[in-house]
Amino acid sequence: MGEIAVEIRSGAYYDSAFLMQLQGFLADQPGVQDVGVVMGTDANKEVLAQSGLLVPEAEAAMADDLVIVIKGETRQAAELALSRVDELIASRRSKRSEQDYLPKTVEAAAEMLPEAGWVLVSVAGRYAAGVARKALALGKHVFLYSDNVSLEDEVSLKQEAAEKGLLVMGPDCGTAIINGVGLGFANKVRRGDIGMVAASGTGLQQVSVRIHQMGGGLTHAIGTGGRDVKDAVGAITFRQGLDLLARDPQTRVIVLVAKPPSRSVAEQIVQQARRISKPVVIDFIGYATALRQVENLYFATTFDEAARLAVERSKEAVDFQPPDTSRFAAGQKYLRGLFSGGTLAYESLLILSNYLPGVYSNIPLSEEYRLQDSLVSQENTLIDLGEDEFTVGRLHPMMDNDLRVRRIAKEAADPETAVILLDVVLGYGAHEDPASDLAPAIAAAKKAAAQEGRYLEVVAVVAGTDEDPQDMRAQIKALEKAGARVETSNDRAAHYVGRLLKALADGSQADGLPGKAVNPETLNKPLAAINVGLESFTDSLKAQGAQVIHVDWRPPARGNEKLASILERMRRK
Amino acid sequence: MGEIAVEIRSGAYYDSAFLMQLQGFLADQPGVQDVGVVMGTDANKEVLAQSGLLVPEAEAAMADDLVIVIKGETRQAAELALSRVDELIASRRSKRSEQDYLPKTVEAAAEMLPEAGWVLVSVAGRYAAGVARKALALGKHVFLYSDNVSLEDEVSLKQEAAEKGLLVMGPDCGTAIINGVGLGFANKVRRGDIGMVAASGTGLQQVSVRIHQMGGGLTHAIGTGGRDVKDAVGAITFRQGLDLLARDPQTRVIVLVAKPPSRSVAEQIVQQARRISKPVVIDFIGYATALRQVENLYFATTFDEAARLAVERSKEAVDFQPPDTSRFAAGQKYLRGLFSGGTLAYESLLILSNYLPGVYSNIPLSEEYRLQDSLVSQENTLIDLGEDEFTVGRLHPMMDNDLRVRRIAKEAADPETAVILLDVVLGYGAHEDPASDLAPAIAAAKKAAAQEGRYLEVVAVVAGTDEDPQDMRAQIKALEKAGARVETSNDRAAHYVGRLLKALADGSQADGLPGKAVNPETLNKPLAAINVGLESFTDSLKAQGAQVIHVDWRPPARGNEKLASILERMRRK
Repeated sequence: MGEIAVEIRSGAYYDSAFLMQLQGFLADQPGVQDVGVVMGTDANKEVLAQSGLLVPEAEAAMADDLVIVIKGETRQAAELALSRVDELIASRRSKRSEQDYLPKTVEAAAEMLPEAGWVLVSVAGRYAAGVARKALALGKHVFLYSDNVSLEDEVSLKQEAAEKGLLVMGPDCGTAIINGVGLGFANKVRRGDIGMVAASGTGLQQVSVRIHQMGGGLTHAIGTGGRDVKDAVGAITFRQGLDLLARDPQTRVIVLVAKPPSRSVAEQIVQQARRISKPVVIDFIGYATALRQVENLYFATTFDEAARLAVERSKEAVDFQPPDTSRFAAGQKYLRGLFSGGTLAYESLLILSNYLPGVYSNIPLSEEYRLQDSLVSQENTLIDLGEDEFTVGRLHPMMDNDLRVRRIAKEAADPETAVILLDVVLGYGAHEDPASDLAPAIAAAKKAAAQEGRYLEVVAVVAGTDEDPQDMRAQIKALEKAGARVETSNDRAAHYVGRLLKALADGSQADGLPGKAVNPETLNKPLAAINVGLESFTDSLKAQGAQVIHVDWRPPARGNEKLASILERMRRK
Repeated sequence: MGEIAVEIRSGAYYDSAFLMQLQGFLADQPGVQDVGVVMGTDANKEVLAQSGLLVPEAEAAMADDLVIVIKGETRQAAELALSRVDELIASRRSKRSEQDYLPKTVEAAAEMLPEAGWVLVSVAGRYAAGVARKALALGKHVFLYSDNVSLEDEVSLKQEAAEKGLLVMGPDCGTAIINGVGLGFANKVRRGDIGMVAASGTGLQQVSVRIHQMGGGLTHAIGTGGRDVKDAVGAITFRQGLDLLARDPQTRVIVLVAKPPSRSVAEQIVQQARRISKPVVIDFIGYATALRQVENLYFATTFDEAARLAVERSKEAVDFQPPDTSRFAAGQKYLRGLFSGGTLAYESLLILSNYLPGVYSNIPLSEEYRLQDSLVSQENTLIDLGEDEFTVGRLHPMMDNDLRVRRIAKEAADPETAVILLDVVLGYGAHEDPASDLAPAIAAAKKAAAQEGRYLEVVAVVAGTDEDPQDMRAQIKALEKAGARVETSNDRAAHYVGRLLKALADGSQADGLPGKAVNPETLNKPLAAINVGLESFTDSLKAQGAQVIHVDWRPPARGNEKLASILERMRRK
């Protein structure tokens, strides 16, 4: 039941914090049952309707009208409450004037605090791009909390920033942590050696919080706004942030968080991350990958996993330098894989596909890489010698090494062969002493290559247990004595060979990042900022010990959109 | 360079092991440089050509001809070696006759060793299905090592086996370990509590070996042959094996290994695995999943990872019983998620998609689940209240709880609501005491539901650190006092809610496995087997202490295909 009083104030601008304050103030008035204080957008009108507050006057309001609806026990109570609105507005003004002098523009604030490197913008969306543009013109990085900013504005702001070596985090960027100081919504997280880039405010918060709970800590966490990783924006800020953390000496581990970007943007980010010699944990939430780890990249599927992987990495010393290729002769560049185990071969192909453009095989990952002739290698080649084609009237290659012994000699004679990779499967049923065949073949192959001035790398995966009938240790010893590099894990062997061949193939390490690189010094000096918008952000920066100037910003023409656009047109002329 | 002597023997059958032996014997003769002993298939002829041994007589040979090519220093040396072939054949016969009496058929062997539960078949592919069929007729499980068996034979053998509650592992099944005894190629692996099903011989070997190296051990490892998981076969043996291990009391953790099956077969296996109350590690090599873990399922991307996950699981006691649903009233079945954090909401949707058919949202995973009206819930609903539509002239829900407080009351009044899930994000910038708004709303909601005879579950994810300005412990305490279940990890909360709602929705637990269930006793009694084919498999079973009868098998009509097919036709008449 209850009686409703309503007031519409046209063309007036109040920030959201004040509206919430006003709503609370009115709800506390005697005899008041419910209150709605909103701008007259369709969405807000629907919210009023849900609470039974959408009276006809409110329904008629425009998007930039302030709508105040009060439900009182009596009409009198509702109207009495309504009459106190101006009182609150006045008390707020007087409170402000008690404070120190506040500049009215970003420019004035910048003069008062020249060391400010950052401008935080949280004014209503329609004004936000303009404020951000002023900040860039002053050479400041921008933390753009505001949402409801157009895509065109986002792209042009970010392009301008990139050209100047500046960051625009946002629009709709909820969170960042720079040098220990949280901007927007941010948790108090331990300092450490993990840096983050996130196109997701709460993703950044949740991962950073879990890192803290797991005992790790952060250098910096750079927000980008969710739309940054869309094709239209092309991850401009995301890639700048990644580049910045790659060059930041305090950051040893990097975590990337985003809702799944498009394939092309994801690829671009992944390729950039791969060129960094630091571990990079990637959590594109729900982005499925065929491998969990490739070189320095660790793919997480949830926030918890991303945090755990980052904390684990920050505790270990990992070297992601490419392997030494100096022993190889010019022209040596290809892999020749000679497998007896079909699925070992298949897993190797899968892992190698993350390092090499393609590997020819009789069991290829895609048909375009099917070997024309299984007996003749092409470029990078990996063969399953246990396939049906080889085993008609012939024992499986786990028992009969004849084919492999012949093939090892042949591949070693090819001046383009850099690495021979083979599996040696032990156990019941297999050859009782495979090394007795393979070790001499390996030694002869390496010798033949050496006589022609080449270095031949032979990698052997020994698959067996210490209880197998063949004596695994003796097998490993014999193979090592012949000059093979022995691994007991197929994964490790394939990753090693992939890294080696990639290093042999790599010429260009070009980065292709557009614009001017952001100076990492930016991050590591004490944070000083100008705040335009929500006063609570100023309070929170102060509480964190940062230097901050609050701008007493008012919209052009006091929020009257028509008048503002006339003024804007006049100024441009 | 060397003189070549050649001999073709038509219509004779020799097993591959003998051919390898013969090749070695001839290579050791004086003056011999190289030897080729192969059946005259095209592939084998190409191998001869690679070694320069493909003389015209060999080129003219047929697929079932034995081809012997010897390169000697002189023609005389080559011919002398060739003349000794019959000598080796004779010596082999006499060696055989020294041994105990060997049965000539599977039937005879079964009479000699009635306790044999298994028949191993490794004869040439064209004879293998016939032998396997005899084994099934005798009620024996089949380990079918032979390759080059037709798809039609594979399907009909497996269907027949399934109807009888028997297993056909293979064709082209390289490996199995039953009750500690390796069949085919198998490593000596510690006994333990991990069971495996693998459509990959070397995958089975590599994972089992890595489990051993990591300190774990196996109950049984069931091979299926690689083709089993193709659409045409529909994973008959794979699913039988999984079902068997699910019911095997010794097996506490299950590992599944295969090259990636088709989506439909993979789904079928995954759904079956999900109904098992044991942890199941799934390594469909290269099969990308959006989550690493869902309930009892752990997705691995490599052999090493599969082994590590299995060993970790076998060390912990995990309960995969569904949560208790007895407190809920009939008709309570839906989730209402009210999030302030957009990416927390998104991750929750992603996790929930593994438990629920679909969740309506204003940020849905797929458009068909877009909410018609963000203010009105439909079935399972999860809303991001921080979306732009809600924040025009209104503070973000991390600061302003008004919308959520109203919505909690509304959802609680819906008799179909079972769970309300919400995030409470702490930190700088956020509400200074969110629990002061939310805890009373939660308590009131639970009370209102209880007054109508319902139990309302409220799950709150508190995202914060112990150093945040809000005092996280006090926030958690206040929410718990109001009756909320509090989690500090968004992942955990979403998984819990998913399991709960799935339990509320689940009626049917139907398995749909075709045929008769295999008796798990099969696995756990001492292994006794009949071996048809490679003698080395008999030797290896004996070495492992298993009871085994070797069948002195000869192909029908001594391998003369034409004659054999005439005999077969006569028999059928």
